[in-house]
Amino acid sequence: MQTTLRFETPGRSTRDITGDINRFVGESGVATGVAHIFIRHTSASLMICENADADVRADVERWMAKAVPDGDPMFVHDMEGPDDMPGHIRSILTGMDISVPITDGALNLGTWQGLYLYEHRSAAHTREVVVTLLGVCSRE
Amino acid sequence: MQTTLRFETPGRSTRDITGDINRFVGESGVATGVAHIFIRHTSASLMICENADADVRADVERWMAKAVPDGDPMFVHDMEGPDDMPGHIRSILTGMDISVPITDGALNLGTWQGLYLYEHRSAAHTREVVVTLLGVCSRE
Amino acid sequence: MQTTLRFETPGRSTRDITGDINRFVGESGVATGVAHIFIRHTSASLMICENADADVRADVERWMAKAVPDGDPMFVHDMEGPDDMPGHIRSILTGMDISVPITDGALNLGTWQGLYLYEHRSAAHTREVVVTLLGVCSRE
Repeated sequence: MQTTLRFETPGRSTRDITGDINRFVGESGVATGVAHIFIRHTSASLMICENADADVRADVERWMAKAVPDGDPMFVHDMEGPDDMPGHIRSILTGMDISVPITDGALNLGTWQGLYLYEHRSAAHTREVVVTLLGVCSRE
Repeated sequence: MQTTLRFETPGRSTRDITGDINRFVGESGVATGVAHIFIRHTSASLMICENADADVRADVERWMAKAVPDGDPMFVHDMEGPDDMPGHIRSILTGMDISVPITDGALNLGTWQGLYLYEHRSAAHTREVVVTLLGVCSRE
Repeated sequence: MQTTLRFETPGRSTRDITGDINRFVGESGVATGVAHIFIRHTSASLMICENADADVRADVERWMAKAVPDGDPMFVHDMEGPDDMPGHIRSILTGMDISVPITDGALNLGTWQGLYLYEHRSAAHTREVVVTLLGVCSRE
């Protein structure tokens, strides 16, 4: 009940991966349980966010850009550029693992919840997400 | 081993839900495992916090109010008022899912740890929390 | 499939505990699943961070020290000193629980991901970490 999904990102941006995870849950036959989603990187993260108005994600990005500024002279580690350390700190603040309940064979998200892959680096990257399902297959 | 709890909040505040979760764990018969707790919203969150001195939660709120100010003119998305975007960002920073170990049939929290529902909107809301228990029922 | 590990910290610092968790996973025989790691405190936390350059963790600490300053006069709760409330807020921002997939009998972390115990108090402490493994023992 485990798979690895790969996503190409165009650089700093958010991408709704709810459908990709739900497809795997549907194929698995798990009816009740938990879907554990994990990103195998330290400069891209996972985030549950409002999914109706794209301005919400743009405002999250504005807040992040101000709270963890690219090129902050405070940072020593800048080998890969001004977005290197901010990528790590943004990932820690938003988190690299998320678990969502599975109910009646699907992710039990709220109406306005979407599951996003948040790319924090400026350049395009390939990101790996490991999904593990825990639970029971027959409806009890 | 899954249930949905509903909580009425009076607007921005924290509420200790440790007892509610522990009651469900006790009734379930799960002896060893993990309790997964998930809030189905994007402007209320879950938080583990010190549970002895209410000033700690008041100070967390002071920090949040300063780090993510209500009505910040930077925010574009303000359809539901000055606390709309801050509610989303505060929820992302504190998180919408938490998992706690179950040991000997109860949540294995530290002495000073409480599990809180953190309402970030100014107005009263009804919030849904899905609890899923994973583990074994007999003590091994 | 649950154990409690104890770590002595020298005061504010990060410590790589990936090997300790992997040792328990290896001994357990769990081949596929999820390792849930939980710290039973509110002023020390768990964090996945870049593991190749120690400057990254030093920069995370610099950011934290600026974002949540020790001795901030805004804080009311300072019974245990200027690092008391910052310890609680830093722990909430980084998180007290992390889950990592288990694949082929080991933690399925990315190449640059390390699992760290982050001590936020100035003084030395003993910290308890509960590890629970969920999954199947035979390789499917």
